[in-house]
Amino acid sequence: MSKLPNITTSIFSVMSQLANEHGAINLSQGFPNFPVDERLLQISERLIRENIHQYTPMAGLPSLLEKIAALTLKQYQRNINTATEMLVTAGATQGVFTAINTFVNKGDEVLILDPSYDSYEPSVLVAGGIPVRISLNDDYSPNFNRIEAALSSKTKMIVINNPHNPTGRIWTNAEFEALELLLEKHPKVLILGDEVYEYISFSHPHISFHTRPKLMERTIIASSFGKSLHVTGWKVGYLIAPEKLMAEMKKVHQFLVFSVNSFSQHAISEYLDVVDFNEISKMYRQKRDLFQSLIKNSSFELMPCDGTYFQVVNYTKISTMNDVDFARELITKHGVAAIPISVFYNDATDRHMLRFCFAKTDETLIAAAEKLNSIM
Amino acid sequence: MSKLPNITTSIFSVMSQLANEHGAINLSQGFPNFPVDERLLQISERLIRENIHQYTPMAGLPSLLEKIAALTLKQYQRNINTATEMLVTAGATQGVFTAINTFVNKGDEVLILDPSYDSYEPSVLVAGGIPVRISLNDDYSPNFNRIEAALSSKTKMIVINNPHNPTGRIWTNAEFEALELLLEKHPKVLILGDEVYEYISFSHPHISFHTRPKLMERTIIASSFGKSLHVTGWKVGYLIAPEKLMAEMKKVHQFLVFSVNSFSQHAISEYLDVVDFNEISKMYRQKRDLFQSLIKNSSFELMPCDGTYFQVVNYTKISTMNDVDFARELITKHGVAAIPISVFYNDATDRHMLRFCFAKTDETLIAAAEKLNSIM
Ligand SMILES: CSCCC(=O)C(=O)O
Ligand SMILES: CSCCC(=O)C(=O)O
Repeated sequence: MSKLPNITTSIFSVMSQLANEHGAINLSQGFPNFPVDERLLQISERLIRENIHQYTPMAGLPSLLEKIAALTLKQYQRNINTATEMLVTAGATQGVFTAINTFVNKGDEVLILDPSYDSYEPSVLVAGGIPVRISLNDDYSPNFNRIEAALSSKTKMIVINNPHNPTGRIWTNAEFEALELLLEKHPKVLILGDEVYEYISFSHPHISFHTRPKLMERTIIASSFGKSLHVTGWKVGYLIAPEKLMAEMKKVHQFLVFSVNSFSQHAISEYLDVVDFNEISKMYRQKRDLFQSLIKNSSFELMPCDGTYFQVVNYTKISTMNDVDFARELITKHGVAAIPISVFYNDATDRHMLRFCFAKTDETLIAAAEKLNSIM
Repeated sequence: MSKLPNITTSIFSVMSQLANEHGAINLSQGFPNFPVDERLLQISERLIRENIHQYTPMAGLPSLLEKIAALTLKQYQRNINTATEMLVTAGATQGVFTAINTFVNKGDEVLILDPSYDSYEPSVLVAGGIPVRISLNDDYSPNFNRIEAALSSKTKMIVINNPHNPTGRIWTNAEFEALELLLEKHPKVLILGDEVYEYISFSHPHISFHTRPKLMERTIIASSFGKSLHVTGWKVGYLIAPEKLMAEMKKVHQFLVFSVNSFSQHAISEYLDVVDFNEISKMYRQKRDLFQSLIKNSSFELMPCDGTYFQVVNYTKISTMNDVDFARELITKHGVAAIPISVFYNDATDRHMLRFCFAKTDETLIAAAEKLNSIM
């Protein structure tokens, strides 16, 4: 008997592998193809010979916890207690899994907004919970009528990913207010805020759960340095939550993984002294603008992109194929890999949308755009 | 409602912290205090500037999987399929948690042999399972009558840690045969073999589950490079299991953590070309022999130590205190930190035993022994 009978290989692995097989330009799985910042490499090189290769404390390297707290204070004016409200995780994926598996019991319902990142539902299923999947509006804004209808005494948690993968949309202040109003009637529902793209926002500033005092007591925030510091392979993320929630997550974390790669924690801790997250947003904004301008005259229609390093496009003018088949053909016939959006819907809603990752060198984006422009 | 209501901070964290506070010599938590092999450091230094900082494939870096398979073939003459029977995990702890949380459902029983490593029971509880804890014999050999009595139609899994932490005991061939005979009557019971100390054995060779064809179809083996390569902070372990079991564990792993620190996987992969695990056993045998000879005339009585880097001693001649209090006093009054064995028993069986970690420089062991020799 399988806990995950319907799970096959993740779409990211499938598309990256197909891209490799066909020598396609890989704009599918979300990871940068440009080099890591020279300053981070220099820190890393120096650290290798320091005495940093044994277990860090279970909750994370103390200096890293302090740097994250300082960053959170600077960016969001939120004071967090490093000893009681923080946990370093092996990437945000482990953070999300840990949060869900700490609080969700057999039969508990968890609200997930589709299109949704592919790890939420399986994490709920492993916990024995029931994923309740609700579609976002067509413009990828939250539909509060549907959320309200889904909320019940069985609801344990709602997962909110903002900035949103795969669509690149960012919640507005009015939407946060609507959520606050709605959840007043459901005081026990927890929020899991997946904010791994918090430092990659363009159109209007990302509003973090860190800045919502009305929700704070019930909110767990998951974030990660993999995305913002271009080291997706390092697997260093973190959870921030009020002490009561954090205490339970630490218990699970202690026996799920115990601690996180020491070397990477040390290197990121030092790097946080010099890195400027505004520069990172700026760099990605330039890449978004470049990619958009390169394909704006193509047959692909650009959707809005407020943040993340993903650009969603509609290909209705080109093909009536379903998006999974179209994404395969895009690789095999045209040499560009993307992610079909229907896989992120429980009911496989197919609006002929593809997600392109623009965390790539300008050369790569130019080469990809050339291919995309040739498709009619 | 907590899934782990009775869990407090792990004994390893507690004792390491107390040791730090009191400037005690830390022979409690299991990690080496000598430098990492120069060859591994050189590999690491060179790798920093290579393009290895993004996600590895979900199941692990292919070259690392191949090296592990080659090692398993060389050491145990077992052929494993890298594509279907292996998974790199964020340390063996994540491997153990993943194995348990993949297969254990609400109400399933899992047999655990006490004294037992502290992560097994909480991993079962998070899965909603029921830990069934059975004491080993007084000499830490398995008691098959008790195991037989505990086996039932509800038993999903038995966890066998060999070489055994905290006691340093290694199963004999006759014990494996007894297990094989017993489990014939229980064809559905899975075995989780925690073999993280497989390459640290002295008295008689470690017998791995890899060499037991009668059990292989139902056995998941968890191992780790943290212990054997002196990099406990890197958190690189692995699972090996037959395809049917592995397929399910990969599904959970994919959404629990997705992948493991890329840099560490690359470095270990290269290092496996040059490292000789027999040398590591030899080095630890010398440390065991040194530590034993240093305290053999003390008031502590040495228990047998077949493998691992832990030496258990009895302190009955010194004190009638319970072992947790005695361990605290050993730190605060005498400046040496050890782990009390009672914490690894469900019923806190206290036979006045302490565990010392001898993965330390000879200087550290000599300094610790001097203090231990002064205690009457
Ligand atoms: C863990 S692989 C997927 C990477 C990612 O976050 C994405 O492509 O959306
Ligand atoms: C994960 S901290 C504990 C280290 C260890 O395996 C031990 O000391 O037994």
